[in-house]
Amino acid sequence: MTTDVPTIEWTGDALRLLDQTVLPHRVEFLAVRDVDALVDAIRRLVVRGAPALGVAGAFGVAVAVRQAEREGWDAAGRDAAIARVREARPTAVNLAAGVDRVLPFVAKGADAVAAEAQALLDEDVRGNRAIGAFGADWILARTGDRPLRVLTHCNAGALATAGWGTALGVVRELHGRGRVEIVYADETRPLLQGARLTAWELDQAGIPCVVQADGAAPSTVLRGLVDVAVIGADRIAANGDTANKIGSVGVALACREAGIPLVVAAPWSTVDLALPDGAGVPIEERDAGEVLAWGGARTAPDGVGAYNPAFDVTPARLVTALVTETGVLEVSAGATPAAAAGAGRVRG
Amino acid sequence: MTTDVPTIEWTGDALRLLDQTVLPHRVEFLAVRDVDALVDAIRRLVVRGAPALGVAGAFGVAVAVRQAEREGWDAAGRDAAIARVREARPTAVNLAAGVDRVLPFVAKGADAVAAEAQALLDEDVRGNRAIGAFGADWILARTGDRPLRVLTHCNAGALATAGWGTALGVVRELHGRGRVEIVYADETRPLLQGARLTAWELDQAGIPCVVQADGAAPSTVLRGLVDVAVIGADRIAANGDTANKIGSVGVALACREAGIPLVVAAPWSTVDLALPDGAGVPIEERDAGEVLAWGGARTAPDGVGAYNPAFDVTPARLVTALVTETGVLEVSAGATPAAAAGAGRVRG
Repeated sequence: MTTDVPTIEWTGDALRLLDQTVLPHRVEFLAVRDVDALVDAIRRLVVRGAPALGVAGAFGVAVAVRQAEREGWDAAGRDAAIARVREARPTAVNLAAGVDRVLPFVAKGADAVAAEAQALLDEDVRGNRAIGAFGADWILARTGDRPLRVLTHCNAGALATAGWGTALGVVRELHGRGRVEIVYADETRPLLQGARLTAWELDQAGIPCVVQADGAAPSTVLRGLVDVAVIGADRIAANGDTANKIGSVGVALACREAGIPLVVAAPWSTVDLALPDGAGVPIEERDAGEVLAWGGARTAPDGVGAYNPAFDVTPARLVTALVTETGVLEVSAGATPAAAAGAGRVRG
Repeated sequence: MTTDVPTIEWTGDALRLLDQTVLPHRVEFLAVRDVDALVDAIRRLVVRGAPALGVAGAFGVAVAVRQAEREGWDAAGRDAAIARVREARPTAVNLAAGVDRVLPFVAKGADAVAAEAQALLDEDVRGNRAIGAFGADWILARTGDRPLRVLTHCNAGALATAGWGTALGVVRELHGRGRVEIVYADETRPLLQGARLTAWELDQAGIPCVVQADGAAPSTVLRGLVDVAVIGADRIAANGDTANKIGSVGVALACREAGIPLVVAAPWSTVDLALPDGAGVPIEERDAGEVLAWGGARTAPDGVGAYNPAFDVTPARLVTALVTETGVLEVSAGATPAAAAGAGRVRG
């Protein structure tokens, strides 16, 4: 399946990753052939975004199995390497799910694992297209005829997925229907995924956008400059509580205050029915240096520390709509992933 | 009157400004002797913060009058120069008020103007001390016995005033009473006044603090890590609507959601009774390059613009307490500056 942005590709013996740390200034690829390099790439955010991490995790198992074949590891060594891939970042449920998806193929060798990972990639792109269509339908049914002003936070685009995007998949679909006036892209400190990645993706796609500081987002919403906010998710609890990039819950509070919809767009695999609510989401705390310095130059005074949580949790009551490839759940109105899963109760 | 941080001093023929653009790495002073240099310094934020701008505006008139004396300008030229100082930044009401305060002394020469400006400076420091005491009393009456975790946004400290601080004046007072556990300092993009200035001031004063990205603030509040948020103000309308650094209203929304107080600390001169509400506050939009680049290096892709409002407006319903040198108004409970001024109605 062709994609607009080749975020992740398997070359037969290496995982080829579009290096998101050097965008938007350079388009470079990293060929990952061993587990150390893969874990490092995941931690450095060469590849990031929940769905992309799922696909990278699945192909990461292929990397581990290929390395085990090449270097003659035993099964214990191979499985330990796979476990390292699975745990490279703690919050994104998709990484572990991607790894788990291909585990049944490990005994059949790297090619079999890679084939299953490719199936996951293709499903991801198809799912993203469905998310885009469901999301655009839902939004346009509620916003009248005028072109829309959309706010997004972080990057839930082609770069965060296998190639189309979740939140930006919805934006791409709206744009395809001629209904996007402007996208406000929160810059998304500390790592600027919005300024660097979302702005790059939108610009590549010819979708008008402006970057704003994260602190501006609530005000932009409250001043009536935004019709809808669309964000991604890193983990969604059974009740609809949504973990996403730090800064999301401030956008959510402003949307409720202004009476505009907050739309969370994510593949169903982001839902973790084992979590009853957001209180159980592990919040990755990243290195203080990401906040305290810039391009290697310290901005804060020496001796002062930082608090650097990578994610926050938006309570279900603030999530107007959760859009997955299976349809739309109006969460703040009472719909929940748990009920939609037909479980009747949350699986343990 | 001695102050901890010599933000602004008059040397007899020049205005000596602590250059806030090079903090925290260098402590340098700029000697301003002409109006061009002063307007440039105000625009570049060498001196910033509403109360400091008031004092700088008052001394700025002394700079203009001294320059007029030195260069033999007529009254029209002198008054045009004074008008340029008054309009150097549009949102901060204090700058214009500081200029207006000393206008009656212009005809008496630069020394007379400077003496009145010095009186304003001394009043500012005394007022800050009163704000600190009123604010600390109010907060401690509502938060029990434990040491407090305080969140602040931007810099409303000694660097934003003539030397003690408004929001940070409250924090200094709480610290002096042994009641500060930690201060969360929002970094305050795009210009990082929190990471550079607030963290520096707190560190100098021995008050424990950590810097966080602005997007983290709502989550930090919602997770129960904060007991009170204390911020400054650039302009306060008659009904209590408060203009402050961009990002403030996101903090305010989170405080209401979490049920903790949002305290606005500002000199009474920040109140603009001519403005019935926040809708009339002019919102300065600053250069897009502040958002799109860093240290001269562009972060966003070429060809993408930015939206860069410098301030936002927090509605009165979200302002738990407004602390001025005259006392505390519980704004979200219905108290208003207009009523407190005894106007009965808003002055036109």
